[in-house]
Amino acid sequence: MKLGVFDSGVGGLTVLKEIKKAFPSLDLVYLGDTARVPYGGKSKDTIIRYSLECAEFLIRFDIDLLVVACNTASSYALDILKKELGIPVFGVIKPGVRKALEVSKNKVIGVIGTKSTIKSGVYQRSLMEAGSVVYAKACPLFVPLVEEGLTHGDIVDKVVDFYLRDFKNTQMDTLILGCTHYPLLAEAIKNYMGDVQIVDSASALVEDISSFVKNEGTSSLRLFFTDHSPSLESFVEYVLGERYKLEIAPMLCSL
Amino acid sequence: MKLGVFDSGVGGLTVLKEIKKAFPSLDLVYLGDTARVPYGGKSKDTIIRYSLECAEFLIRFDIDLLVVACNTASSYALDILKKELGIPVFGVIKPGVRKALEVSKNKVIGVIGTKSTIKSGVYQRSLMEAGSVVYAKACPLFVPLVEEGLTHGDIVDKVVDFYLRDFKNTQMDTLILGCTHYPLLAEAIKNYMGDVQIVDSASALVEDISSFVKNEGTSSLRLFFTDHSPSLESFVEYVLGERYKLEIAPMLCSL
Repeated sequence: MKLGVFDSGVGGLTVLKEIKKAFPSLDLVYLGDTARVPYGGKSKDTIIRYSLECAEFLIRFDIDLLVVACNTASSYALDILKKELGIPVFGVIKPGVRKALEVSKNKVIGVIGTKSTIKSGVYQRSLMEAGSVVYAKACPLFVPLVEEGLTHGDIVDKVVDFYLRDFKNTQMDTLILGCTHYPLLAEAIKNYMGDVQIVDSASALVEDISSFVKNEGTSSLRLFFTDHSPSLESFVEYVLGERYKLEIAPMLCSL
Repeated sequence: MKLGVFDSGVGGLTVLKEIKKAFPSLDLVYLGDTARVPYGGKSKDTIIRYSLECAEFLIRFDIDLLVVACNTASSYALDILKKELGIPVFGVIKPGVRKALEVSKNKVIGVIGTKSTIKSGVYQRSLMEAGSVVYAKACPLFVPLVEEGLTHGDIVDKVVDFYLRDFKNTQMDTLILGCTHYPLLAEAIKNYMGDVQIVDSASALVEDISSFVKNEGTSSLRLFFTDHSPSLESFVEYVLGERYKLEIAPMLCSL
């Protein structure tokens, strides 16, 4: 069985890592759109166009299932991808919502993500439909912090305080990390938020796809990126824990 | 006379503003590649490809002169643009270098910019060829800080200290802001660096083009962006000081 995973860049590698751990025999193809990263500050139309192009690239590898490992792309493009592609498509929003509703006792739930993810309102709607009180906040500096290798320390604590200060005066008992970069800041966020359950979509997604995925394959992994940006190798190694051969995806026709 | 200006996004508006102030009768066309911003973490090949596409878009408006208002694009694509286009092309690197050499007394000069700009070594080479001692540092968090509206305060001061700490123990008397976003952080940087001259390319560029530019035209200004990203209007207004009509550039074929 072959599974395709795409993300706006390198953040989705945190999702890929969980999938690989849970289904070690699977064949995996990853595409990171590093030539156009980040998606989180772009418009709905552009995010949909980019997501379709990424999916079309992966479809050529005869994948049996597609995972949209990017919260921003999942927020805007999931329905269209489901309609356009002839295979099962999973995003990271629904699993995160399900998990949050499971672990929250008082149904006061927070969600943080990129500007576009929060602006889309997808998390907020799903949680409210399930009867939750929701607090949402865009945290645009979190991704650049992580990509700069800053995951703890004074600057991180100040930025966490800057964004999450308003959450402290609420009854929130659960916080969804609505961006695949954020798990790398989980400790700093947990320290700041104290007695709040942190939900990261990656493990929830693995549970969701487990009924569709047969752990059968040749354990292959191909990693494609649309741009060989500086520090790419070291970031991939930092997230996946070992060195891999990186391949550059041929030109996608875009904007 | 019509002048084209392009940038990876909104940072180049700081350059546009200076040009507009110096030559109020000129006709101006600006293109911000907000669909693929930022360029600062991307590879040389990709930066060149994007720059050519932006230039080709502006050439269609019959511009007489092109300004590359992005340091990253100027670092990698200027020579190719000069070769490919039949009109004068100006970048922001050379003016910044000239100005720094003029104001520096001891020829110990610092330069800060994006990862790609610093990695290109263009500033360092030009300054060293002129006999300077050079200190260079990439500051990837500065752009997201500015785009988040954070230009002063505690977080900014911490990040400025994080990047510029090593500069404090040098004899540096001049620091080039090698990114069009950085002038918005000039005060925080000046406060931190103390008795160091801050050089921002925009005003130096205006001096450089003044012998080529005739201040004759209909004072028109068209602002194009490749994506209508969230907060675009407010950021444009923040930099230019008034509201303008924004136009979306038709699809560029890319990657």
